[in-house]
Amino acid sequence: MNEKAFQDYYPDELSYCYGCGRLNERGLQIKSYWDGDETVARFTPRPEHIAIPGYVYGGLIGSLIDCHGTGSAAAAAYRAEGRAMDTLPPLRFVTASLKVDYLRPTPLGVELEIRGQIREVKGRKVVVSATVSAQGEVCARGEVVAVRMPEHLLPTIS
Amino acid sequence: MNEKAFQDYYPDELSYCYGCGRLNERGLQIKSYWDGDETVARFTPRPEHIAIPGYVYGGLIGSLIDCHGTGSAAAAAYRAEGRAMDTLPPLRFVTASLKVDYLRPTPLGVELEIRGQIREVKGRKVVVSATVSAQGEVCARGEVVAVRMPEHLLPTIS
Repeated sequence: MNEKAFQDYYPDELSYCYGCGRLNERGLQIKSYWDGDETVARFTPRPEHIAIPGYVYGGLIGSLIDCHGTGSAAAAAYRAEGRAMDTLPPLRFVTASLKVDYLRPTPLGVELEIRGQIREVKGRKVVVSATVSAQGEVCARGEVVAVRMPEHLLPTIS
Repeated sequence: MNEKAFQDYYPDELSYCYGCGRLNERGLQIKSYWDGDETVARFTPRPEHIAIPGYVYGGLIGSLIDCHGTGSAAAAAYRAEGRAMDTLPPLRFVTASLKVDYLRPTPLGVELEIRGQIREVKGRKVVVSATVSAQGEVCARGEVVAVRMPEHLLPTIS
């Protein structure tokens, strides 16, 4: 895809997250995009992201849902305000709660697709549900309740 | 502590989990122990486990609760059967569901304490609740529903 990912709009100071920061060289650097009314990210786990031989460890699945969820929340909040993601003030979200149901073991060695659905945009809160699929089969299902980042945590952005 | 951690009893073939496998050189290698009726693990996040400057990213918190939860589930299952953890057949657990409530930002750069409470041991299912604390303050609270690993996923153990 040629379009910019949600995470590419984050200001530099907020781009170091292990899960989704484009400036975290050791991190996962996931990239999320709109696909109609849904959001999508794709990620191929590394060999060390193993749980038991052949399968992905659950913490990675949770991380993917978490960071795709907060990214999707930001995108949804901009969309709800009719604003482009590069306009100020920046809208960034943190996770209030994360829920993951592991439906079947997630195979290691293939690309995973994380799909988000925006369930609610209300005040400072956005609820995003998500699935993680491998080879067309849903392996995990989750929900992120995201809230606007408190102003005192936002770095000063000029 | 001189005692062996729960994870030190896992057979080699099941010791590569990114979160808790003692043989995963790139992983977190968390170690869980009994502390009376509770279980405890301690982990100091690495600098790259950042969310925003000064704080730990949520996916790591989820991973810690997840792996401490499944380890605690195994320990509780052995204890319920009155068996030592190095006796056969091995009892290993996978995560059916994970829930995390992020109560406050978790500071980066200090040791975290993950405490588990065994809520239920019933058939193949164990429910473990957990807190993640920094400097004595609870930053996140979670629950893991763990189920016995299906036999077809267990490697042959001689």
